[in-house]
Amino acid sequence: MTLIASSAANEADAQTALATAFAPRSVAIAGVSPRTTGWGGGQMFLRGIRKLDRVPNVYCLNPRGGELDDGTPLYKSLSEIPGPVDSLISAVPASAILGLVDDAIAKGVKVIHLFTAGFGETGSAERADLETEVLRKLREAGIRLIGPNCMGVHSTRGGVSWMEEGATTPGRVGMLSQSGMNASEVVGEGVRRGITFSNIASFGNASDLNESHFLEFLANDSDTDIVLAYLEGIRNGRRFLDVAKQMSQSGKPLVVLKGGLTEAGSRAASSHTGSLAGSAQIWSAVQRQGRFIPANSIEELLDMAVTIERLPNVSGPRCAVLGGGGGVSVLAADICDRNHIPVPWFNQATQQVLREFTPVAGTSIRNPLDAGFMFEGDKIETALTAVADDPSIDWLMVHTGADSGGPGSRRDNFAERMANDLADVATKLSKPLAVVIRQPRTNTGFERGLDLQRRLNERGIACYQSIEACARAVRRYLDWQSR
Amino acid sequence: MTLIASSAANEADAQTALATAFAPRSVAIAGVSPRTTGWGGGQMFLRGIRKLDRVPNVYCLNPRGGELDDGTPLYKSLSEIPGPVDSLISAVPASAILGLVDDAIAKGVKVIHLFTAGFGETGSAERADLETEVLRKLREAGIRLIGPNCMGVHSTRGGVSWMEEGATTPGRVGMLSQSGMNASEVVGEGVRRGITFSNIASFGNASDLNESHFLEFLANDSDTDIVLAYLEGIRNGRRFLDVAKQMSQSGKPLVVLKGGLTEAGSRAASSHTGSLAGSAQIWSAVQRQGRFIPANSIEELLDMAVTIERLPNVSGPRCAVLGGGGGVSVLAADICDRNHIPVPWFNQATQQVLREFTPVAGTSIRNPLDAGFMFEGDKIETALTAVADDPSIDWLMVHTGADSGGPGSRRDNFAERMANDLADVATKLSKPLAVVIRQPRTNTGFERGLDLQRRLNERGIACYQSIEACARAVRRYLDWQSR
Repeated sequence: MTLIASSAANEADAQTALATAFAPRSVAIAGVSPRTTGWGGGQMFLRGIRKLDRVPNVYCLNPRGGELDDGTPLYKSLSEIPGPVDSLISAVPASAILGLVDDAIAKGVKVIHLFTAGFGETGSAERADLETEVLRKLREAGIRLIGPNCMGVHSTRGGVSWMEEGATTPGRVGMLSQSGMNASEVVGEGVRRGITFSNIASFGNASDLNESHFLEFLANDSDTDIVLAYLEGIRNGRRFLDVAKQMSQSGKPLVVLKGGLTEAGSRAASSHTGSLAGSAQIWSAVQRQGRFIPANSIEELLDMAVTIERLPNVSGPRCAVLGGGGGVSVLAADICDRNHIPVPWFNQATQQVLREFTPVAGTSIRNPLDAGFMFEGDKIETALTAVADDPSIDWLMVHTGADSGGPGSRRDNFAERMANDLADVATKLSKPLAVVIRQPRTNTGFERGLDLQRRLNERGIACYQSIEACARAVRRYLDWQSR
Repeated sequence: MTLIASSAANEADAQTALATAFAPRSVAIAGVSPRTTGWGGGQMFLRGIRKLDRVPNVYCLNPRGGELDDGTPLYKSLSEIPGPVDSLISAVPASAILGLVDDAIAKGVKVIHLFTAGFGETGSAERADLETEVLRKLREAGIRLIGPNCMGVHSTRGGVSWMEEGATTPGRVGMLSQSGMNASEVVGEGVRRGITFSNIASFGNASDLNESHFLEFLANDSDTDIVLAYLEGIRNGRRFLDVAKQMSQSGKPLVVLKGGLTEAGSRAASSHTGSLAGSAQIWSAVQRQGRFIPANSIEELLDMAVTIERLPNVSGPRCAVLGGGGGVSVLAADICDRNHIPVPWFNQATQQVLREFTPVAGTSIRNPLDAGFMFEGDKIETALTAVADDPSIDWLMVHTGADSGGPGSRRDNFAERMANDLADVATKLSKPLAVVIRQPRTNTGFERGLDLQRRLNERGIACYQSIEACARAVRRYLDWQSR
């Protein structure tokens, strides 16, 4: 089923080309140096593709020929390659690009990705002309172009990638990114957050295929449930907004981190990808029209993926906040309130249950619940159940540290016991539960926090790195739901 | 020299009492159970005081007498203690407090700290009356009271503390806090940030000695250069503002984290310390009048301490941002701009120097400098020097990750080499340098980041955990300087 129809024949070609780029039967990489362990661009793609190990035919090109140190042949040119080549990845210098393009046309490749940089984004007129000439040749031959000046495509199912990092397990989060490094950061950070990916595109200068083409691909991609985006500029604003709006209406959320929203950021974006980034005011209107969920950092992109995947049933904003410390509780309530997450006092029946096992002095049982005591014994189920059954509450946020010295931290197997306690109770609660693992100070705290997060991820519990991150993400998700 | 004069005779008594509480010749702790490893309040103070090991006479009280498991005698009452007792710390239950107060008056103690909670903050009229009765008895006897419902005082030089965590090295940062746990967080987090402390007070309900008394003490304290504060409510607003303003004018900065600024936070504060927290609008006016530096989290309090101690010579906001990644650079510029830290393009002479050793394609040399390449070789000194000598720049921010895979991260001894490279260059630069170590994802990254930060702290370099934290702190410091 095609969710979003293309507007013209050449748009259909674009989608066919992208389907090939994301899952090619054969790939050629131009600009592979003989050492497999080298840090050149060609090696990067070769390692990424080999790690996923799903593309049937992978060929390497080097003008001097010979072979890789593991015996893989290095073809001198595309014409030497015995079989067909669906997709070509170029890591040659810009000075060699016109020759490679001619060879690609002769070979009949279907889509080209130029990792090669040094075109319009340099600000040089000569380099901009070279970019135009490449595009003209490819258009004439009916070949679609990804880039230049970008990392290209990553597909856990299709087997293409520029990354060695990140999970090889196929997931259901897609991404488009004008910066390859920012996409890599999201994928790398996804390991810790328990988020796995479907198809990702980094498109750099986007002189042919642009953000709208990639968005349309992900909108129609049955492997993708959520789309994250890092954008500097938008080439075809109207088309992008149309696709974004349709996607949002069909229930697939788009979360956008916009780079270059300030004057300084906009100047930096022009140096980076040659984008005209536009003002914050304009962007704000675009965001409303396209029904995006906004994000201001890489971490916030992942916070939204975690929220959408793990808290799909949160039905309202009113939050029960549970964790140790009176001062921490006051600040937690302030943070929630600033993020438009109400923290109402529990009703009398709930307070009565909590009072039964709470030391009276200096401990609030009203909300936030100063609940350090909970982690010392078996009181966690009683407390969470009472709070979840309170009609003034929509969802629960438990916050904890993982350093030694915090409540419960002196127990043996801290991470295992806390993860099991929370995840076991969560399945019985009438309301959704989120867990915040506060920033660690020590190596031990970091390791235990990572272990706790991994275990909670495995049990499908939404985890965040700060109370603010959690409150903000839930608020944005609720705002999007009522779009 | 007394910087800030007290307004009345009983205020002078307060300062004398505080001098005793922070550096007593003798301390008695009431409510110490026989097991030294127990988790009761009495044990907490005993361990904190023993760790610092600077109070000449420390006595423990337990109504049943006997001794601790290490042979230390447990006195049944204050009257049994052979010598004088300057300062009494109470960890007995509220129900036993009136008897202890009578004993303290008979013994002639000079100052009492009630860790004991369960008074006015519970919302019970009976408990509030008990608090009033305790205060009446002590006033009549001329004894000053710290608390109730608080952790009391910590002094690295005087040897009193409720904490086992934190450095024992005396430092020059003081703190007052309505929450003991928040003060503990600041001290514990200070270890990582390389911040050490002079005198700290947690004052809870503040029924006698309040935030103004503690602020006056720290304002006149020659061991304290910077004062951090966590406040929920203020008892004597006019006095506090007077002291704060005089302190600020004398060049000693006050950084305030205000809890209970929102409706939910204010409700939580009333449960925590019985404070009437007041609205954000009122607080904003108070802040301007008192010339505080604002902070919104524990981390921001420490960011300010780091900035004031390590970047005293920053003379203006215009920043050179250096680190790896085009997309990261765009976001970095956005973050700086949003925090009113300009990121101007370098002048032509600077760009020319940078261009000489920068690969042309896809790398900005304008500002931010996409400077991943720097960490691969010996180019760091040339790049930083060129940038520091640019007349359009006031200070430099270098940002780096510490996980494997980032620029320079593949070098052996990553932390040692990067710390030495940066610290060596910093001493030669014409402008101040700050370093941001971005959040790690892996155990290795956390360990290396912690190691890098420790080494940079030792060399006196200001380190931050995010580009935002760094930009915001420098902006606030500049704003305070132009107060």
